[in-house]
Amino acid sequence: MQDVSNKEGMSSVSSLLDAPVLQAFSTYAAIVILKMMLMSPLTSYFRLTRQVFANLEDTKLVSSTEDKKLVRVDPDVERVRRCHQNDLENIVPFVVVGLLYALTGPELSSALMHFRLFAGSRIFHTLAYVTPLPQPSRALSWIVGMLVTSSMAYKLISTVLYL
Amino acid sequence: MQDVSNKEGMSSVSSLLDAPVLQAFSTYAAIVILKMMLMSPLTSYFRLTRQVFANLEDTKLVSSTEDKKLVRVDPDVERVRRCHQNDLENIVPFVVVGLLYALTGPELSSALMHFRLFAGSRIFHTLAYVTPLPQPSRALSWIVGMLVTSSMAYKLISTVLYL
Amino acid sequence: MQDVSNKEGMSSVSSLLDAPVLQAFSTYAAIVILKMMLMSPLTSYFRLTRQVFANLEDTKLVSSTEDKKLVRVDPDVERVRRCHQNDLENIVPFVVVGLLYALTGPELSSALMHFRLFAGSRIFHTLAYVTPLPQPSRALSWIVGMLVTSSMAYKLISTVLYL
Repeated sequence: MQDVSNKEGMSSVSSLLDAPVLQAFSTYAAIVILKMMLMSPLTSYFRLTRQVFANLEDTKLVSSTEDKKLVRVDPDVERVRRCHQNDLENIVPFVVVGLLYALTGPELSSALMHFRLFAGSRIFHTLAYVTPLPQPSRALSWIVGMLVTSSMAYKLISTVLYL
Repeated sequence: MQDVSNKEGMSSVSSLLDAPVLQAFSTYAAIVILKMMLMSPLTSYFRLTRQVFANLEDTKLVSSTEDKKLVRVDPDVERVRRCHQNDLENIVPFVVVGLLYALTGPELSSALMHFRLFAGSRIFHTLAYVTPLPQPSRALSWIVGMLVTSSMAYKLISTVLYL
Repeated sequence: MQDVSNKEGMSSVSSLLDAPVLQAFSTYAAIVILKMMLMSPLTSYFRLTRQVFANLEDTKLVSSTEDKKLVRVDPDVERVRRCHQNDLENIVPFVVVGLLYALTGPELSSALMHFRLFAGSRIFHTLAYVTPLPQPSRALSWIVGMLVTSSMAYKLISTVLYL
C-alpha cells in the first residue's frame, strides 16, 4: 500500500470505487441521473416540433424572424417539465442519501435491492407520467421511490448519528 | 489494516464515515434532505384535500370520472411548491459544498457550527414560508443559509484550489 | 499510516482531497455551484427593484402595507428563474456524475478538460440567457454541458458497471 499511496494520494481514491457497494451505487446513480437528463432533450424535442417556446429569442430556431406568437404554453411540454421537476425532487435526495448510505458499508444484497427498486420505480414513473398511464400507477411508483430513499436515510442516520 | 482491506476494498470505505466530521455532515445532510422530501407529501396532501391537480388523469384519485374542472391552480399548493423549489435551490448547494468541505478536514467544532446553523435556518425557512410568518423572517433565514454555504465554499476553494 | 489513522479515522479523509483530480473536481464543482447560487440574489434584486413578488407577505419589503398589486409576474424575473432552473437541471447531474467519475481515477488532463469545458459552457450559458444573446448561442452552450456530463457518465459506467 505504501508505494501506491505515493502516487499523489490516489491510493485511497481508486480503492474507494473498488468496493462493490460503491460500484453498484455509482452504476445506479448514473442510470437515474442519465434518465433525468433525458428529460431536457425531450422537452427541446416537443418545443421544436410543436413550436412552443419560453423565450422570444428561441423562436429564431424555427422561424426567420422573432415570432411573439410562438412564446406560449403547451400542455405536452408542461407535462414533460413536471416530470423533470419530479425527477429533481426525488433523484437528488436518492443520490445524496444513497452515496452516504453506501459509505456506511451496508450489506451488498440489501444495498442492491434499494438501488434497483429506486431505479425501476423512477423509470416506471417517467413512463407513467409521459404516456400517461391511469392513476394510481404514477402515484405508486413515486411512493416506492420515496420509501426506498427514506429506508436508506433511516439506515444512514441510525449508523452515523452525530448531532 | 491489511486483513480488513481484503474484504473487497471496504476498509477505506467504512473508515470514511468513522471521521466525526463526516458523521456530522451525513447526519445534517440527511436531516435537510428529509425536510426537503417532506414537501412532496405536503403538496400531495394539499392537492388531495383541496382537489387541485396538475394532470387530468390525477383527478381520478378523488373522482369517479376525469374532471377537467379539478385541473387548476391553488395559492396554497403554489406556496408549498415555491418552498420546495427554494429548498432545491439552497439544499443542493449545501450538500455538494458541505461534503467536499467536510473532506478538507475542517475543525469539528467549526464544521458543526456550519451544519447546525444551516439546518436550523432551513427548518425555520419552511415554517416562515408555509405559515406564513411576516417578512423579513423568511428572507433572513434564506440569507443565513446562503452565508453558511458560501463560507464553506470559501474554505473549500482556499484549501483545494486547482484550476 | 497507523498513528495517523488513530486520529479518529481522519487519515483516509484528508488523503482523499490530496488527489489532484479530486482537488480539481472540488474547485470546479464549487465554481459552478456558486454560479448557480448567484441566481438567487439576482432574482431577489429584480424582484425588489421592479417590485414584483410571488407572495403577498413579501410586498411588505418595499411597501408599508401589503399590496396585492405587487404580486405579479415579470418577464425579466421569469427569465432569471428559467436560467436558475436550467442550472439545477444541468449542474446537479454534473456534480453527481463528476464526483463519481473523479473517484474512478481518470487521467488528470482528461478530467481537467471535462471540468473546464463544463464550467465555461455554464458561465457562457448564463450570459447568453440573461443578456439575452441571439440563438443558437444558448442552445450550443447547453449542448456542450450535456455532452461533457454524458462523456463522464460513459467513462464512469464503463469503469464501475455493477448491476
